[in-house]
Amino acid sequence: MAKTKIDNNAFVYPMPMTIVGTMVDGKPNYLAVAWVNRVNYQPPMLAVALGKVHHTNKGISLHGEFSVNIPGQDLIKETDYCGLVSGAKTDKSSLFATFPGELKNAPLIEACPLAMQCRVVKTVDLPQDTLFIGEIVAVYSEERFLTDGKPDPAKMRPFSLTMPDNRYWSLGEPLAKAWDVGQGFKRS
Amino acid sequence: MAKTKIDNNAFVYPMPMTIVGTMVDGKPNYLAVAWVNRVNYQPPMLAVALGKVHHTNKGISLHGEFSVNIPGQDLIKETDYCGLVSGAKTDKSSLFATFPGELKNAPLIEACPLAMQCRVVKTVDLPQDTLFIGEIVAVYSEERFLTDGKPDPAKMRPFSLTMPDNRYWSLGEPLAKAWDVGQGFKRS
Repeated sequence: MAKTKIDNNAFVYPMPMTIVGTMVDGKPNYLAVAWVNRVNYQPPMLAVALGKVHHTNKGISLHGEFSVNIPGQDLIKETDYCGLVSGAKTDKSSLFATFPGELKNAPLIEACPLAMQCRVVKTVDLPQDTLFIGEIVAVYSEERFLTDGKPDPAKMRPFSLTMPDNRYWSLGEPLAKAWDVGQGFKRS
Repeated sequence: MAKTKIDNNAFVYPMPMTIVGTMVDGKPNYLAVAWVNRVNYQPPMLAVALGKVHHTNKGISLHGEFSVNIPGQDLIKETDYCGLVSGAKTDKSSLFATFPGELKNAPLIEACPLAMQCRVVKTVDLPQDTLFIGEIVAVYSEERFLTDGKPDPAKMRPFSLTMPDNRYWSLGEPLAKAWDVGQGFKRS
């Protein structure tokens, strides 16, 4: 197969869509964020990469707290809107009902199947983005999204983002068990 | 809806499955990695979080180079195998055919629809993981995986991981355009 060199502005597939919540100027603010993932096992930590221009960064830097909320497909328009409009110009505080958690400056979105609160443990300065690394200190869901006490992706109906084609995608079908299906390969 | 507090060992949904390649003791070594995402826009950077026990970490620390390869669904067993077996005990170098790129210590997997080479720009020490932040310096694909010169997820057929249920998932259907569908919400 002939390999072709393509643009360096490349991505991983697919990226998880989340809504990051913080308190800015005394009000909840929300940003659509797909550049997020786990970065430490115990204690559990998430890292979010946010362009330095974002209003959200002010809140995280000031309070050292943020939330990461996983929206279902029913929130696709609201999520996209949070990435289209800056909190510096538009008040997004009334977009979502919130519920109380352990941290005061990490607003949890009621309508999201999974909502996590994080306390910043490290901030990494990059050329255009700031990487905020936060320890997950509280996690909330609802019984209807769980199977055997664990979040069930088929019930949560999360969606993902791909770039640079800039499309949202549903989660497809379960294909195999991880840390398992490769045993078959090993024996074959 | 009654919210339930669940285990802090929580995740984002879904996580992109990749195979990270490096050179260890003079041989290509591969690790299945889902804790990876973009972290800077320009220059483009990826961050990978790797438990400190991994054989792969030795190679990245020594050479300051690694590859991130996006496998298609046809490589699900091979990918899982790379996460089941440590390079410290088992030679994984013959698992994949590789092709030459710009960096010598970041083996590119021929069978993957997308393969990127990264040069480490920052290393972040966390309690159990090391976060390697690399600038993407070269990216390769094939014409059959591109649409309008960009990687097309529907053609690449990537798969994702969810935890703690530990399942691989296919990419579902395209739902909407990003930075677009929320305009409708704004007007509604």
